[in-house]
Amino acid sequence: MTPAAPILLTPGPLTTSLRTRQAMLVDWGSWDDRFNQLTASLCEQLLAIINGSHTHHCVPLQGSGTFAVEAAMGTLVPRDGHVLVLINGAYGKRLAKICEVIGRRFSTFETAEDQPTTAADVERLLKADRSISHVALIHCETSTGILNPLSDIAAVIARHGKRLIIDAMSSFGALPIDAHTIAFDALIAASGKCLEGVPGMGFVFARKESLASAAGNAHSLAMDLQDQHAYMAKTGQWRFTPPTHVVAALHEALLQYNEEGGLPARHKRYANNCQTLLDGMARLGLRSFLPAAIQAPIIVTFHAPKDPRYDFKTFYERVKAKGFILYPGKLTQVETFRVGCIGHVSSIDMHAAVTAIAQALGEMEVLDI
Amino acid sequence: MTPAAPILLTPGPLTTSLRTRQAMLVDWGSWDDRFNQLTASLCEQLLAIINGSHTHHCVPLQGSGTFAVEAAMGTLVPRDGHVLVLINGAYGKRLAKICEVIGRRFSTFETAEDQPTTAADVERLLKADRSISHVALIHCETSTGILNPLSDIAAVIARHGKRLIIDAMSSFGALPIDAHTIAFDALIAASGKCLEGVPGMGFVFARKESLASAAGNAHSLAMDLQDQHAYMAKTGQWRFTPPTHVVAALHEALLQYNEEGGLPARHKRYANNCQTLLDGMARLGLRSFLPAAIQAPIIVTFHAPKDPRYDFKTFYERVKAKGFILYPGKLTQVETFRVGCIGHVSSIDMHAAVTAIAQALGEMEVLDI
Repeated sequence: MTPAAPILLTPGPLTTSLRTRQAMLVDWGSWDDRFNQLTASLCEQLLAIINGSHTHHCVPLQGSGTFAVEAAMGTLVPRDGHVLVLINGAYGKRLAKICEVIGRRFSTFETAEDQPTTAADVERLLKADRSISHVALIHCETSTGILNPLSDIAAVIARHGKRLIIDAMSSFGALPIDAHTIAFDALIAASGKCLEGVPGMGFVFARKESLASAAGNAHSLAMDLQDQHAYMAKTGQWRFTPPTHVVAALHEALLQYNEEGGLPARHKRYANNCQTLLDGMARLGLRSFLPAAIQAPIIVTFHAPKDPRYDFKTFYERVKAKGFILYPGKLTQVETFRVGCIGHVSSIDMHAAVTAIAQALGEMEVLDI
Repeated sequence: MTPAAPILLTPGPLTTSLRTRQAMLVDWGSWDDRFNQLTASLCEQLLAIINGSHTHHCVPLQGSGTFAVEAAMGTLVPRDGHVLVLINGAYGKRLAKICEVIGRRFSTFETAEDQPTTAADVERLLKADRSISHVALIHCETSTGILNPLSDIAAVIARHGKRLIIDAMSSFGALPIDAHTIAFDALIAASGKCLEGVPGMGFVFARKESLASAAGNAHSLAMDLQDQHAYMAKTGQWRFTPPTHVVAALHEALLQYNEEGGLPARHKRYANNCQTLLDGMARLGLRSFLPAAIQAPIIVTFHAPKDPRYDFKTFYERVKAKGFILYPGKLTQVETFRVGCIGHVSSIDMHAAVTAIAQALGEMEVLDI
């Protein structure tokens, strides 16, 4: 019944289960009680993942994950705030760009793409500039797959009485983040990542007190999370037309997430996928860009083969013809490509992907790996 | 194969065809050529509807229609622009609210909810304030179903050398708008309306010259249509993760739109739906709020029955149990309810809806209509 389609080994959109996609075969009325219940159940299940129902509201938002990130920054950073943006990749740079465009004062701290930001860095930076009110961090930087030490950094920020905004786009649902032990004003993720829904909406876990005092902060009507939440709390409905089919798919994906065993099971499957991939690629001589200690089990960056007969476009098309869609690299200094470990895929698929990659390189006569 | 679901007689989300929903059973890679081709084909088909491929770019945007409206205002009205907002309902008011939040100078002109704005009004207003640079108009105001005289108003605006922004959310695809005869800087619509796609994206037809000179105008990164277009023109891809399944569904819906006979056929079906509804409701004694001359065949507002035994909630639930979802009224002065004429529905469905409404009122013993 699933139409033949390649398996997506990307940071998203991902391969989803047929059950999740079939949830989109129903048209929902956005004003109807049954749809309101779906939204309420969705938010409840999402809050349970971070153990956050006492401390945070879940505010869903139409659009891609970046829309939700911009909405969180615009809504939760007051107009006179000052954001320290921690950067080690393209998504950190995007956070800074958002601050620039929406007119929030910001400073940046950038480390190399294979260097996590450390708690000591943040400690030093917060001591050096007392005007910083918020720190914005990418949990897992999708441009390489690097994991930043969230707990340690969050502890420093809390000790200084500053606010933390976490872009957890590619880690949420697979790597644990507990609102009881990590203090944050906003944590942002989206439907089409580790929860294995389809793309089309994001969501922000916003600290209740911060959201309550955020009226008038936002630079945008559509992206005002305070207004979005207040309307939803009053009516049970989204302010503007929701992507009903995307919402239904995410709800169905969450049911499967819980049936699978929730976060520990999801993490275990992705970790197996990642290890299978790393082991298989190592046998082919393909080297991963990051050391194991800072490699999140989400997406792996590999050095491109040195052989002049290698080019990414041909490689991509050949692997795709064998049933797998890979992802280009996003580094400026080094030629790389990326392989995702997330989505409705298992280690059997990862084995098959490695075989397809080996065959493609063989066909291309790429010998110097 | 369609799961039993009520028919949606609302302004959207609408009832879509099974074929459109089944297009969402495939997962697409957002970086893949095949998906880029889908996006390009989508934009091409959309431009053909307005005869606009020479004069306008089609810029798709993630999110609901309101996101696209805000994006158009923010991108195409320069920061020192002055927008005259024409209002005769909730969506006109929302345009003014958007100007206020994003910090564009604006003036409003408001007529009663059953009074179209006239070209003479606009002529007078433009003469009275030469600082007005843009006029923003709702084509069909969904809060009542009223149709504003777009051609006449557009001619006045063009004669004064001012720019027109048209929110054609609920009319696009069913009522003709030709870019050769109507001058506009932006026309905005969305996937889940008369094209009968699913909700989750909007699109803006932006005049090429206006878009080319719009860099730096936008108040938002995610909603910057100039940036969105420039990136798409260069790479064929969306800047940020697209709602792939929603895009695929809209593409499939457009194929069916053209197979049905394009705009004339779509308009004819909706006009038949509307007439069937009006005739049937008149037989029940239910009066429409607007006179026929200004009633668009999109959504009809009816006066609620006077009988004290009538209440909307019970009425809604009873009609829903018979297979049809209606829509609440949106007028502040008069008690009304609304019935949509759009979506994958025919006059046979409208007959059945009238029967369901009659039965529901009978069961409620509502006699004084």
